[in-house]
Amino acid sequence: MAERIVIALGGNALQASDSDATAESQLKVVRKTCEKIADISCMGYEIGIVHGNGPQVGRILLSYETSKEVTPPMPFDVCGAMSQGYIGYHIQESLKYALNRRNRNIPVVSIVTQMVVEKKDPAFKDPTKPIGKFYTEEEAKRLTEEKGYVMREDAGRGWRRVVPSPKPRQIVEIDAIRTLWPTTITISVGGGGIPVIQKNNGQLEGVAAVIDKDFGAELLAEGVDADVLMILTEVEKVAINYKKPNQVNLDHLSLEDAARYIEEGQFARGSMLPKVEAAMRFVRKYPNKKAIITSLDKAVEALQGTAGTTITFA
Amino acid sequence: MAERIVIALGGNALQASDSDATAESQLKVVRKTCEKIADISCMGYEIGIVHGNGPQVGRILLSYETSKEVTPPMPFDVCGAMSQGYIGYHIQESLKYALNRRNRNIPVVSIVTQMVVEKKDPAFKDPTKPIGKFYTEEEAKRLTEEKGYVMREDAGRGWRRVVPSPKPRQIVEIDAIRTLWPTTITISVGGGGIPVIQKNNGQLEGVAAVIDKDFGAELLAEGVDADVLMILTEVEKVAINYKKPNQVNLDHLSLEDAARYIEEGQFARGSMLPKVEAAMRFVRKYPNKKAIITSLDKAVEALQGTAGTTITFA
Repeated sequence: MAERIVIALGGNALQASDSDATAESQLKVVRKTCEKIADISCMGYEIGIVHGNGPQVGRILLSYETSKEVTPPMPFDVCGAMSQGYIGYHIQESLKYALNRRNRNIPVVSIVTQMVVEKKDPAFKDPTKPIGKFYTEEEAKRLTEEKGYVMREDAGRGWRRVVPSPKPRQIVEIDAIRTLWPTTITISVGGGGIPVIQKNNGQLEGVAAVIDKDFGAELLAEGVDADVLMILTEVEKVAINYKKPNQVNLDHLSLEDAARYIEEGQFARGSMLPKVEAAMRFVRKYPNKKAIITSLDKAVEALQGTAGTTITFA
Repeated sequence: MAERIVIALGGNALQASDSDATAESQLKVVRKTCEKIADISCMGYEIGIVHGNGPQVGRILLSYETSKEVTPPMPFDVCGAMSQGYIGYHIQESLKYALNRRNRNIPVVSIVTQMVVEKKDPAFKDPTKPIGKFYTEEEAKRLTEEKGYVMREDAGRGWRRVVPSPKPRQIVEIDAIRTLWPTTITISVGGGGIPVIQKNNGQLEGVAAVIDKDFGAELLAEGVDADVLMILTEVEKVAINYKKPNQVNLDHLSLEDAARYIEEGQFARGSMLPKVEAAMRFVRKYPNKKAIITSLDKAVEALQGTAGTTITFA
């Protein structure tokens, strides 16, 4: 049976640069990214793709905030759903072409994905993720009064809305993703999923929150019984003493090593730390499986065992 | 075996009103709509949903046009993909709850859907569908020069961009929709699908075009071998002499009757005409099947044969 791999794509695999945010530029980057994913498909893996959406959803919010006198701004959960449509479309169009060029006739589809988070998640008491544009102190106070937003001063640059980053608990659409998996490359859990809470009557309700896409990808890997969780980022390997003269790039990380390095503060919050934590979570649950953290360029070699950082139970 | 039905939802089933375009108001309308769809599911039908996106994609465009000095506008195909994410999310959230309340545990998912149109479609030579906001003549001329947009003067209200409305030819993601169909309610072909053309190298490329969602729904009904194509609109029945003293509401339409009424100009272009034409196309292809045009409120009765207009081959 084919091995199953969940691939988590970071923002760098999806956008040209912070300053070049046209759809055309992004599509060019996505097309290059999809060439690599098609190469992984040629290795015989069954693939599911998870993508980030930070820069894209930021731009969607910015557009609505700027045009709010003309058309009502969409709430954060809807902006997330929009980003799934946008990015999913670009990936499925590009990946299908990359596969066809390799004579691999595999359907590729994006599933709009909701992610249940818990109302009682402590993150809701301490929102930390800045979203949208900068405001003056006065504007910030008005937004707090009018909309109940939590606003924080951001390093002297002005005030920004902050939202919580709760842990993902349940992929609402997991059944459909499982049904499609054996025949189809799915793109799902975009941006970590659209954050929803479950009300007492069972109804789901969108909330303003940012879900870490690496933890979302890990939950997907559990849900589809994946053999490999691969988290792609900007560097080829996880490193300790990162960007210091004594930096050491790691070929392999055991759970024990990883826990020690985390205690030493080796991995940056909001950057390498959640990737390592998601990888640890996966191999702790499945001691015979592996997680890989590497760059897009080295993804094929990493699967062959000659690049990247492999995380295993021991 | 369960009968299969493709349900096409019009804009009125998805928005509160033209002037009330907040996501919250729309969600309330979608929730009511989904109660009716859940009732149809309780009748034992396997369901696929197609939705329009005119008002929603119009608002997305408006937001980007208004904020273009701050963030690059997204092209029309990407706006369509965004609207699929947004509307699909609302429907899948609402329908899942409506089904759960009826003790029906059926997965509901939205598939981001591309629709192939032909480069040589005559519609590309004669763009007719106005999109986005109104401009002055001077602004309109600049947009034509800078971006190649086709701009038309619109009934004294200013200039608007017009795009073609080509015929839908092929649902790119039909395989995945077919795979999901027996177990899952799919939401697909939103807004008629994201319009793409196939380049000579096989690559798909998004184009600025508006696809009629009723023709898109018909193509889906063919693709999943549906038994019924149901097109929901604002009136309970198709009528001749519409809004005249001698208006006659029709319980039944044969292909022959329909063709005669079309020749008489009984059905409004861009309104009832494409619905009747899509229905005709379906029963012409499958003479033993039926299409129904009715309102959301009468959908259940129409399936029981006591409301709406049923279109059959003879």
